[in-house]
Amino acid sequence: METSLARIKKDIGTIQKFTSTPGQGCTRFSYSIEDKKAKNYLIDEMISLGMDVKIDGVGNLRGTYKGQCENLPIILVGSHMDTVKHGGSFDGITGVIAALEVIRVLKENNINTKHTIGLIGFAEEEGSNFGATTLGSKVITGKIASSELKNIKNFEGKSYYEVLEESGLNPENIDNERLDKKDILGMLELHIEQSIVLDKNNLSIGIVKGIAGTRTYGVEIIGESNHAGATPMNMRKDALIAASEIISHVNDIVKENGLSTTVATVGKIECHPNVSNVIAEKVGFTIDIRDLDDYAMDRVLKEVINYSNRISDKYEVKCNIRQITSFKGTRTCEKINNIIEDIVKSRGYSYCKMLSGAVHDSAVMAEITDVGMIFVPSKDGKSHVPEEYTSFEDIKRGSDVLLETLLKLDKI
Amino acid sequence: METSLARIKKDIGTIQKFTSTPGQGCTRFSYSIEDKKAKNYLIDEMISLGMDVKIDGVGNLRGTYKGQCENLPIILVGSHMDTVKHGGSFDGITGVIAALEVIRVLKENNINTKHTIGLIGFAEEEGSNFGATTLGSKVITGKIASSELKNIKNFEGKSYYEVLEESGLNPENIDNERLDKKDILGMLELHIEQSIVLDKNNLSIGIVKGIAGTRTYGVEIIGESNHAGATPMNMRKDALIAASEIISHVNDIVKENGLSTTVATVGKIECHPNVSNVIAEKVGFTIDIRDLDDYAMDRVLKEVINYSNRISDKYEVKCNIRQITSFKGTRTCEKINNIIEDIVKSRGYSYCKMLSGAVHDSAVMAEITDVGMIFVPSKDGKSHVPEEYTSFEDIKRGSDVLLETLLKLDKI
Repeated sequence: METSLARIKKDIGTIQKFTSTPGQGCTRFSYSIEDKKAKNYLIDEMISLGMDVKIDGVGNLRGTYKGQCENLPIILVGSHMDTVKHGGSFDGITGVIAALEVIRVLKENNINTKHTIGLIGFAEEEGSNFGATTLGSKVITGKIASSELKNIKNFEGKSYYEVLEESGLNPENIDNERLDKKDILGMLELHIEQSIVLDKNNLSIGIVKGIAGTRTYGVEIIGESNHAGATPMNMRKDALIAASEIISHVNDIVKENGLSTTVATVGKIECHPNVSNVIAEKVGFTIDIRDLDDYAMDRVLKEVINYSNRISDKYEVKCNIRQITSFKGTRTCEKINNIIEDIVKSRGYSYCKMLSGAVHDSAVMAEITDVGMIFVPSKDGKSHVPEEYTSFEDIKRGSDVLLETLLKLDKI
Repeated sequence: METSLARIKKDIGTIQKFTSTPGQGCTRFSYSIEDKKAKNYLIDEMISLGMDVKIDGVGNLRGTYKGQCENLPIILVGSHMDTVKHGGSFDGITGVIAALEVIRVLKENNINTKHTIGLIGFAEEEGSNFGATTLGSKVITGKIASSELKNIKNFEGKSYYEVLEESGLNPENIDNERLDKKDILGMLELHIEQSIVLDKNNLSIGIVKGIAGTRTYGVEIIGESNHAGATPMNMRKDALIAASEIISHVNDIVKENGLSTTVATVGKIECHPNVSNVIAEKVGFTIDIRDLDDYAMDRVLKEVINYSNRISDKYEVKCNIRQITSFKGTRTCEKINNIIEDIVKSRGYSYCKMLSGAVHDSAVMAEITDVGMIFVPSKDGKSHVPEEYTSFEDIKRGSDVLLETLLKLDKI
């Protein structure tokens, strides 16, 4: 019993055509006409499998494949439907199609699971409309109240509530459509890795131990602006030299103070006055620290602060560090991870346990249920770009693992 | 015999009022009404000393105080008249006023020098109108031909030639007004230091050994953009980490490979895509290297290239370095410097020999005659800002040294 590479390929091939930017990658925003077309295709497929299907008030595609015992909690499986602008054909939708394919295999093999299987295609995961991620899952888990939808605005200033109504949805329904803790056994999500770990190491499967927490800090170094020609080297308070010494040390700080999973990145830098013949007066940069483990992030931050203070003293500059954002990490379910690992091992697939550095709906779902996430490789680690690619062999392998995991979970 | 602090103070106090931005520093561009008022004040003072005065075709104020032997080459003394926008009250004009005061002292003491003394107030040193510095001196030394004035445009697109004509000057005259090598014995310029060396070290006089040459380079580091959360530290090609490691090492490179006079500055940095949660793909920065000594600059550049290549290999990024500008350094006249040093020593003034990191008309004049430059302290090293300040005691000390240097030069 296995999933069908041909059907998966057909599904992805069909849905990737629903883009508002043909020839320039997939652009399929939630609530767009392309989103509706993609959902209509999936709804037809789901109905042909005898599933009950609806689109809830916030635009999540939700189907159920009835199990033997209707009073048992359901097993959810799926991912998100939407893309970024000029994104790829695999991010999100691969996990929805894998879920559909799993149910197709159950149907064609006349397997009647104990638990009802819920297929979910989340809306608005990417933040493309409203600049905030995982809104579809946050709304149906109650993290965002329906009343708040009138305050969330898109880039044209239109409220989420209005957008939903104009899209033909009924946001008033949301309060009755929430997913309740007691009604769910667990949630499984297959997703492309969106990074280079699996591809570079020639691994087929990533078992996601957790979704990293993120802390972002803004560092400001204030020195003294002076003439680049007329100021001797030993009389400078050069903000950019000081900032560079801190930035260049971030790798070592992570190595010495973090775990193997900890990452820290300085991706943004601004220099003032930013003129070639003037010594920099002010430099601002960001540090993005991620890990599942709060303690590891604490230690990296502490050493960033210590080191920044030492460097500030050395160059007689001032240094201010302020927190910009802080999100806690989310652990996936160890029991489910062990099930996945057993399956992957017995199938002889190459794999690793890893963290997800990017956020996913599963992180939101983890607050109300046990979740398991399966990563499949992204070629060259590319994602959110038209060249995003995952081989269909890899998607099939991941889908087969998803199918077997779901069956094992059903038997618990 | 000494210069008068009171007269110097009155001159500077009078001329600082000729600004187009009252209350917001001195703004006295060449060819402006304020420039004309300042020149008229000085012309009146010069005429009262019995000097011959004219404004040449490019707007330089030129006066002569006749010596005993009209067939001997003249001794030039002066600086520039113009300011930057919202500049200070001392930059440039201090040297013109010191020259005027020196001639006043000669007059009141009935000293008849062998050589004719030429006072010069250069126009358009700062580049405020045409974006290029030292144009007044470049034109009268023949470095810029009068025919070129039609091609040099101001920020409104008007040619230098038109601006001169509209200002009532006659640019056609320039070819007959040039300063010729054989007619000049030397040039002395007193100028504020515009940096912090004298003030920080409590020194009264800077003897300028030379005006540093400048080489500016653009460095581009090309790495790989990736997700800041999903890319392990050991799988990154982070352009900003690599750039930072190079920038933070510039101080050491100068220390180990340059002279005590060598400076190098990274004042400008640009990062792409410059987003906090994306590993930097490309970082560009400038390196400005200055010294009088070409060999010192060569060695610093060579080590910058070597080090950049080592760091590029370490982080597996690409590095391109290209030259943006290159100006050779200018030596002042050692004989004149020795005269100045003897005077300063015998007067017991604290002093140092130093380079000028900024350019001056004297660097242009050095191509046709022997020059000597005397620096007086800038409070906190500030210049080109309204707070620019030099104490009148310091200006008087500098003017006394200027007077004595001129007299010694006259006797050679």
